[in-house]
Amino acid sequence: MICSNLENRGGTLFFGDSDTTALIQKYGSPLYVMDEARIRRNCRVYVDALQTYLGKTARPLYASKAASFKRIYEIVREEGMGIDVVSCGEIYTAYKAGFPLVHAYFHSNNKTDEDIAFAMEYGVGYFVADNAEELNAINRIAGERGMEQKVLLRLTPGIDPHTYAAVATGNVDSKFGSAIETGQAEEITAYALSLPNVHLAGFHCHVGSQVFDSDVFLRASDIMLSFIAGIKAKYGYLAEELDLGGGYGVRYVESDPTIDIAENIAQVAARLKARAAELNIPLPAIRMEPGRSIVADAGLTLYRVGTIKKIPGYKNYVSVDGGMTDNPRYALYRSAYTVLLANKLDEPCDFPCSVVGRNCESGDILQENVSLPASVTRDDVLAVLTTGAYNYAMASNYNRVARLPVVMVNGGADYLAVRRESLDDIVRNDV
Amino acid sequence: MICSNLENRGGTLFFGDSDTTALIQKYGSPLYVMDEARIRRNCRVYVDALQTYLGKTARPLYASKAASFKRIYEIVREEGMGIDVVSCGEIYTAYKAGFPLVHAYFHSNNKTDEDIAFAMEYGVGYFVADNAEELNAINRIAGERGMEQKVLLRLTPGIDPHTYAAVATGNVDSKFGSAIETGQAEEITAYALSLPNVHLAGFHCHVGSQVFDSDVFLRASDIMLSFIAGIKAKYGYLAEELDLGGGYGVRYVESDPTIDIAENIAQVAARLKARAAELNIPLPAIRMEPGRSIVADAGLTLYRVGTIKKIPGYKNYVSVDGGMTDNPRYALYRSAYTVLLANKLDEPCDFPCSVVGRNCESGDILQENVSLPASVTRDDVLAVLTTGAYNYAMASNYNRVARLPVVMVNGGADYLAVRRESLDDIVRNDV
Repeated sequence: MICSNLENRGGTLFFGDSDTTALIQKYGSPLYVMDEARIRRNCRVYVDALQTYLGKTARPLYASKAASFKRIYEIVREEGMGIDVVSCGEIYTAYKAGFPLVHAYFHSNNKTDEDIAFAMEYGVGYFVADNAEELNAINRIAGERGMEQKVLLRLTPGIDPHTYAAVATGNVDSKFGSAIETGQAEEITAYALSLPNVHLAGFHCHVGSQVFDSDVFLRASDIMLSFIAGIKAKYGYLAEELDLGGGYGVRYVESDPTIDIAENIAQVAARLKARAAELNIPLPAIRMEPGRSIVADAGLTLYRVGTIKKIPGYKNYVSVDGGMTDNPRYALYRSAYTVLLANKLDEPCDFPCSVVGRNCESGDILQENVSLPASVTRDDVLAVLTTGAYNYAMASNYNRVARLPVVMVNGGADYLAVRRESLDDIVRNDV
Repeated sequence: MICSNLENRGGTLFFGDSDTTALIQKYGSPLYVMDEARIRRNCRVYVDALQTYLGKTARPLYASKAASFKRIYEIVREEGMGIDVVSCGEIYTAYKAGFPLVHAYFHSNNKTDEDIAFAMEYGVGYFVADNAEELNAINRIAGERGMEQKVLLRLTPGIDPHTYAAVATGNVDSKFGSAIETGQAEEITAYALSLPNVHLAGFHCHVGSQVFDSDVFLRASDIMLSFIAGIKAKYGYLAEELDLGGGYGVRYVESDPTIDIAENIAQVAARLKARAAELNIPLPAIRMEPGRSIVADAGLTLYRVGTIKKIPGYKNYVSVDGGMTDNPRYALYRSAYTVLLANKLDEPCDFPCSVVGRNCESGDILQENVSLPASVTRDDVLAVLTTGAYNYAMASNYNRVARLPVVMVNGGADYLAVRRESLDDIVRNDV
């Protein structure tokens, strides 16, 4: 199957050694399931490769917007990762989980004064500053607090990573960062160096997530190190850290390529070292920011099948008891997912259908052009694979549908990481 | 301006007689604002026209998925409307608001057994049954409870309403309902009539929302009455209710047409009466289901401007402190909205830009190709108009951003209808 933590045992789907049909029985439907062992394995791939090839100063940061809840911060902390946070909500969640925020990097193209003060109050180690206005605000608020704030500058290296538009961020034309090509990156660097309450720790770039093309990080390394060398020559400033952002691609469907992350990181490390030697600069401490590739294949979603509708001459619909409220990615991006009937894995899949949600909206589709066993019927268990990233994180209460719980499995054991929303949760803020 | 409840008073945007810049000062940013007077006016257009042209049995149902929170159910109740609900969450919210659920119509293409039992327990008056499986479940559960459940059958009349795909639901190829064209509608009618615990109250069709083409409801009326007459002739069953679903179009931008709803309902009424006379059947009690056209232009969203980014040779970005988390409709459908700088209405709009959100995602765009005053700067107040429908309803905590409050204005007064989410709300269900 698409990921090694999936197994067919006697026609039933097992995930991380747990019987998915037993999980939905125990915790109710629909349900997000995440495999703790797989999350840890995915963390270790990055931690080990970065430290092996780039030394003990190198560190991956978990891009927690992919899936942010308390338990996940505990796990990535135990695995020795830092975190990338993008809002007060993520900072607060990590804080509540006991994460040492000195290892947190605060992103966002638009931090308000309140966000900045909040992050300083909670001791966030690094701000990834997007622009000069934000630098001004950081400098001013740090000054008011009598402190110096460590900052990385977000630069756009002008790389088109051949990933889809919503996750492509390395282009010059982006709401994020300052472009090297236009001279704005140098300008903002000089400006940061002039600010008394800002400690410029280095530079960040993000060329996109879901990167399969190994050349992307190599080109980003070249461009960023050349920039760093140029700044050193002109301003005498040497970057302590270089954050390459992003993360490698995850397999959603069988036709997606498999990428050897450790091997890719080895190549990036070799290039970084060679380029730094050429440029005659010491290599900064390297950061990467995997999010999707830490959690995506460590998650799946279980639903109960409801209505099966056969429209002669048109097509077939299989409805489930969730939909765009728990996974808006098909509605947003037409994202591909692998869909299985978890209790009938041994039956031939010869029933073509669209798998649709329960929401009152025609666009509430989980996946088109699916083949399921022809015996599919009400109360069968349907699994959508690789939903660990950007599903729980993007869930809504559209149609006032309660959000799903997150159950963790680990070597055959299971426990609740996020409770199911109640109806009282939904009306809690209604006056 | 695009709606009569908007005014420019000395360069400042007033909405429902309230100063928007004072509201954001009082309640914080960002903020949904809804105009109670406008909601009531919109309700009255439907109530008055339906009762004037179709008699006292006619009634509009507020399609509450457009915006569901307690206060809205109080308002539509006071205006004499029924409601259309699509989940246990909407039922529970209406119940908590004291709405008499005997006037509620329960939609959804996929109601689980739990949903059905819940709705019966709360005394929901009507189920709009989508398919035979659901009828079976309704019949069985009603039987277990020793009751008879009133049901409308959702039929697809095979009309393409020339609206956008996500809201087009009248086609034969739809996850919703049973098609008249394929004979499945007749089949399910005969089946419903055979079930002992189901009281067939009539039929429902929904040809889409945001309907500007007046012909759509006329054609739906013809098709549905012909079907009703055919069923009467063949089975001796006379429908008590005919629910035409949908609602008329709302103006999002100046180029959208203006539609005279009362005049359109008068035309539909005339057609229904003429057609019923031709077919020699009494006219059923008519229902319509406006949602968007009740609340959309009664709402706007206020943001604070953050970063302004000018990328020479590419384009300009104006970032605000919200985005796809509070309004995902551009990300989902590329929906058009009118954007104004609420505190600088008298300045010429000669600065072309994209208005983008604060979320870590390139697709987090509120609107492209906007023109704002060139003096736009941090802390200006930006208003996105016509956000009363499908904004609060579709909001998420993506990036763990807290959801916005809903403030109601009414003739210059203002009050809170939904409180702002707290950070503790966000982590409430994290274990």
